[in-house]
Amino acid sequence: MSKFTIKETISLFDGKLLKLSHESTSTKTSMDVNIYLPPQYEESNNKEIPVILYLAGLTCSPQNGAEKSFLPYFASKKGFGVIFPDTSPRGAGIKGEDENWDFGTGAGFYVDSLVEPWKENYNMYSYILKELLPLIKIEFKNLDSINNISITGHSMGGYGAIMMYLRNPGKFKSCSAFAPICNPSIVPWGEKCFGNYLGNDKSEWYKYDPCYLIKEYLGNPLIKNDEKILIHVGSKDPFDFRDNQLRCKNLVESAKNTKLDGKIDLKIVEGYDHSYYFISTFVPEHVEFHLKYLTK
Amino acid sequence: MSKFTIKETISLFDGKLLKLSHESTSTKTSMDVNIYLPPQYEESNNKEIPVILYLAGLTCSPQNGAEKSFLPYFASKKGFGVIFPDTSPRGAGIKGEDENWDFGTGAGFYVDSLVEPWKENYNMYSYILKELLPLIKIEFKNLDSINNISITGHSMGGYGAIMMYLRNPGKFKSCSAFAPICNPSIVPWGEKCFGNYLGNDKSEWYKYDPCYLIKEYLGNPLIKNDEKILIHVGSKDPFDFRDNQLRCKNLVESAKNTKLDGKIDLKIVEGYDHSYYFISTFVPEHVEFHLKYLTK
Repeated sequence: MSKFTIKETISLFDGKLLKLSHESTSTKTSMDVNIYLPPQYEESNNKEIPVILYLAGLTCSPQNGAEKSFLPYFASKKGFGVIFPDTSPRGAGIKGEDENWDFGTGAGFYVDSLVEPWKENYNMYSYILKELLPLIKIEFKNLDSINNISITGHSMGGYGAIMMYLRNPGKFKSCSAFAPICNPSIVPWGEKCFGNYLGNDKSEWYKYDPCYLIKEYLGNPLIKNDEKILIHVGSKDPFDFRDNQLRCKNLVESAKNTKLDGKIDLKIVEGYDHSYYFISTFVPEHVEFHLKYLTK
Repeated sequence: MSKFTIKETISLFDGKLLKLSHESTSTKTSMDVNIYLPPQYEESNNKEIPVILYLAGLTCSPQNGAEKSFLPYFASKKGFGVIFPDTSPRGAGIKGEDENWDFGTGAGFYVDSLVEPWKENYNMYSYILKELLPLIKIEFKNLDSINNISITGHSMGGYGAIMMYLRNPGKFKSCSAFAPICNPSIVPWGEKCFGNYLGNDKSEWYKYDPCYLIKEYLGNPLIKNDEKILIHVGSKDPFDFRDNQLRCKNLVESAKNTKLDGKIDLKIVEGYDHSYYFISTFVPEHVEFHLKYLTK
């Protein structure tokens, strides 16, 4: 676990976007990450600010969310930091890693791989939770990426957000997602990545599948009442209506008789697609949602 | 002049982004253009809404501004339409058109070319003013791209905005620019494009150079008082401080003893660069500026 190298510092919305890289012990590669520090962030005082962790979708890098989600605009207005991690190791040197857009580079699927040749590098679950978030707290002491953090994401990253939230009760103060892959075990994107990264034993897949995880979920000890997961999906999202890759209703169904029964706030929004146009439209609502749970 | 083909309709911010194409008589190519219609736009009534025309910079297409400027977000809040034209003809089939990022495809420089082999196609000035804006008013009757329109742009498009504004008093209700090339006749970007598109006679260049145009400018007959041009430039814009391509202070200087003496509101903003991060940060201020002049 090494410190960050600042590759670029960009001014926006009165704050700073830092394009960072560091050598990761989880992935054994150099990893890029973007962090947005709003003007309310100051290194010199003891005032910590809350954080939203944004996990991006297939093919994306730390740039997509930073450039197109509009999260930094609201971060500056409301005083929270944003973390935009990458979606996989890059340049691991594994044969075939660059041959598919939905597997390998840009498609780490936020799991810890169990099988060769992926398991040396494709460990995005541990990378984010056990390496990146602690390192950020150490390097940016007033960015509370440990105790005052919420999680969201898009598509594969929406799945990643819900999965990490359900696997780690109390780690995140709240969770939301844009067009998440809710039941990866039974859809082509998930089958491809789980099969390759985790092997044939489906019991290993279920450990990352929100529709299974929710059955064992104990509830968020940080939330006194009204725990919810906010999800938006566009009615014209082709990966949903055409390809059936998202299966958000399965999560609503799976939540029945669990701690989150009736608490999956699934909003199917008329006319919207799968793009960052869709994301940026509903970012304000997601920000307001998370700010109800984060400590200001 | 043919009607638009709708290539894609995208929902965002309660409005619609239309990705259009049409066969242009000015460029003799198919031209792409994006139009943002806010929710206030309705085809069925007689209520026209104002328009902001956004001209993009070198290498850009109609997508950059639509994806990254966040103009549509404010357009939905305030009820104006946005037009995002392309920056050149594409696929004209001219030898060398794709060999440079700062000349040819993606770099039409908003002029009407005078010399071979460019003059058949590279006529972005006439294309935008005489073809695109009228066609939009015909096809979208409640989008007032003729009588209630302001102009802005970035870099080459910032130059294009100021140039078109100064050449056509009363055409636009107001003008602003992000990091514009203010004195193209004397900087490498301008010399390359003007030399190739307009030939060696520099008197032809001056007809497109804001620093010359401003000398003859009669003032905007639409504005009763307090006519201004709002310009933002980042102090860390490498094309400015490193390459000296923008020369915004030359425009302030050239404005002396003209109708716009003291009216070039040049704001050099500390720390900002040339990117869409810079643009989106100051879009709200530019929107407020134009809304003072546009009729609601």
